Amino acid sequence: MIYLDWAATTPPYQEAIDVMANTMKNIYGNPSSAHAPGLEAKALLNESRKKCAEMLNCKADQIIFTSGGSESNNMIIYSLLKTRDKGEIIVCGLEHPAAGLPVQNMAKMGAKVKQLNPDKAGLIHPEKLAKAINEKTRMVIVMLLNNETGVIQPLEELIAVVREAEIKYGRPIHFHSDMVQALGKIPVDLQKYNVDSASFSAHKFGGPRGIGILFLKKDREFLFLGGGQERGMRPGTENLASIASMTRALELSLQEDHKSMKKLMDLLLEGVSEIPNGEILPPERVSRRENYCDYILSLSFPPVPGEVLARVLNEKGFAISTGSACSTNKKSKTAALTVMGFDRRISFSSVRVSIGRDTTFEEVDEFLKTLGKTVEELAVI
Amino acid sequence: MIYLDWAATTPPYQEAIDVMANTMKNIYGNPSSAHAPGLEAKALLNESRKKCAEMLNCKADQIIFTSGGSESNNMIIYSLLKTRDKGEIIVCGLEHPAAGLPVQNMAKMGAKVKQLNPDKAGLIHPEKLAKAINEKTRMVIVMLLNNETGVIQPLEELIAVVREAEIKYGRPIHFHSDMVQALGKIPVDLQKYNVDSASFSAHKFGGPRGIGILFLKKDREFLFLGGGQERGMRPGTENLASIASMTRALELSLQEDHKSMKKLMDLLLEGVSEIPNGEILPPERVSRRENYCDYILSLSFPPVPGEVLARVLNEKGFAISTGSACSTNKKSKTAALTVMGFDRRISFSSVRVSIGRDTTFEEVDEFLKTLGKTVEELAVI
Repeated sequence: MIYLDWAATTPPYQEAIDVMANTMKNIYGNPSSAHAPGLEAKALLNESRKKCAEMLNCKADQIIFTSGGSESNNMIIYSLLKTRDKGEIIVCGLEHPAAGLPVQNMAKMGAKVKQLNPDKAGLIHPEKLAKAINEKTRMVIVMLLNNETGVIQPLEELIAVVREAEIKYGRPIHFHSDMVQALGKIPVDLQKYNVDSASFSAHKFGGPRGIGILFLKKDREFLFLGGGQERGMRPGTENLASIASMTRALELSLQEDHKSMKKLMDLLLEGVSEIPNGEILPPERVSRRENYCDYILSLSFPPVPGEVLARVLNEKGFAISTGSACSTNKKSKTAALTVMGFDRRISFSSVRVSIGRDTTFEEVDEFLKTLGKTVEELAVI
Repeated sequence: MIYLDWAATTPPYQEAIDVMANTMKNIYGNPSSAHAPGLEAKALLNESRKKCAEMLNCKADQIIFTSGGSESNNMIIYSLLKTRDKGEIIVCGLEHPAAGLPVQNMAKMGAKVKQLNPDKAGLIHPEKLAKAINEKTRMVIVMLLNNETGVIQPLEELIAVVREAEIKYGRPIHFHSDMVQALGKIPVDLQKYNVDSASFSAHKFGGPRGIGILFLKKDREFLFLGGGQERGMRPGTENLASIASMTRALELSLQEDHKSMKKLMDLLLEGVSEIPNGEILPPERVSRRENYCDYILSLSFPPVPGEVLARVLNEKGFAISTGSACSTNKKSKTAALTVMGFDRRISFSSVRVSIGRDTTFEEVDEFLKTLGKTVEELAVI
């Protein structure tokens, strides 16, 4: 099986697996216990937190370990229930359901929600955000790197708009960014981005499942409570083995040769353009490479249904997906493309190819050959 | 180091560690992906769910995998925010903060909360619960096995009271039980208990951290939303390696020789009673052994402060705790004893000793000798 679905989940680094197993075996204490095994666990917890903070360029006490991206997004969104006035939330139309759905839920619970849709290239325009903000805006949510199309938002410009609005209206506006797909694919520097919070998930960068980070610039009250872990902001016995394993995976992931991915993407883009009816989504990603990451590619071969194409390719030994893995069982498989204004015919036909650290030129080459043949076969039917 | 703090966390089974590492390495697909690696992962997820359900005596679709006990408790409590009328919550005064604090929070958000306190032996009386229930009661929360004292609640009788009240008032009352400390120590049979929901945490029975179960009799709406995993009830890419590892740990844990624990507890109770000023908390646990589990023992040697005793014993090579690990950094270390009516002098002096599958007679013997000497030394100061 040639795995081309790295955006759904990445096979963990062997070293991350080893750190997991060794920590489980050797550092078994509860970091909240005052005795020696507890203190030993606490030391590793602190060390891991410090390392993660350094790699993300933030302070150690701004790192909250969570069970992953979905939890990080949900906890920050529902923290609005702890504020007196829920006010307005502005949410990017491209969000993963782990941010999009809790926001919809907040709308049912009394918050006003405005959806900010991107242009056809997938980009959110700062002017559009500026127009949407008013004196009631409490939170702005924009993901850094989209999981379906690979589009990278102009986050610095969007944040600048929010910071200006804060001055204009004389009150804080929380800027949250889902960076789950970004970390490990493009540089993530939390000093540069100046967000109030951001979500990360280890299994997207070669770490284990069930562990992630909520970066939080300033302490905040959250709904979930318990034993006071993570300085009272996220309850539950600290998942030390997974935290240490994630930390190692992040170190390794940031050392990868990201430039070789560009060459693999060159090959993919060129190969797909040679297949009749092949459409790269959005077409802008060919001419404006800097706006898209080199790990994720959305494609369409109308009228071949994306689901059929993915299934047949799977039978031939290639794992690709339609939209995001998370929406496999749902009707709307390609929310991002729909929001970007592509018609049903295109989004119905779309598939996602995502590459990762182990992907080779030979694999991409073999994939392109099989893809061409498969599209030809299916188009005839 | 002789580890006598198994209630805080258990060292994982080697087999659970192996399952974790092997699953991470070999079954890396996202269970929500439609391709072969995804389907392979989904098959193992389904198999694990089925095994857990069989061991807990419930249906597979009543098992929701979560990040642990704290999340399971919080999610069920905050699900009340999705109901039109928050009504009244009746909560046992002995709850772990992971249930007690979210309930307090619900009180701030409009629910009425009644605390149900136990008698001095730590038991909640069914008649007391019957009196507390009225037509507005929406949820009753009683933990099965207390983490500080080992007291086991008469859950069947308490549930019977709730089921009668449901008939009387003609509306459902949700009975939730925190069974985090119970599973692996006493038999847990969800047919027998007839609760509406229950929380479990793998690291309390030799499994990994960061993984647990919410048993849920009937589907329910929850706050946190995302990619539709766990049939829409708990978002986040399924933490398959931890789920498989937890499943194996539960199998091993249920096969342990629980009778040998009784003999270890006999030894502990006898040994402590021979130490001057030694108090077993509550004293009833000597005469009414069936109401307490054989894994957890609360002790006090007034006027020696519990914190000092635990620290000195730690220096001598024994890991024990004061109250629960989760409250190490808090002022109120022994909430359970206070609620049971013990005075400050007693609770201030209390320590918790908890044993587990690897604890030997030699270890307990050595502990008792050192305990006796240490108490003598500290009492002189």
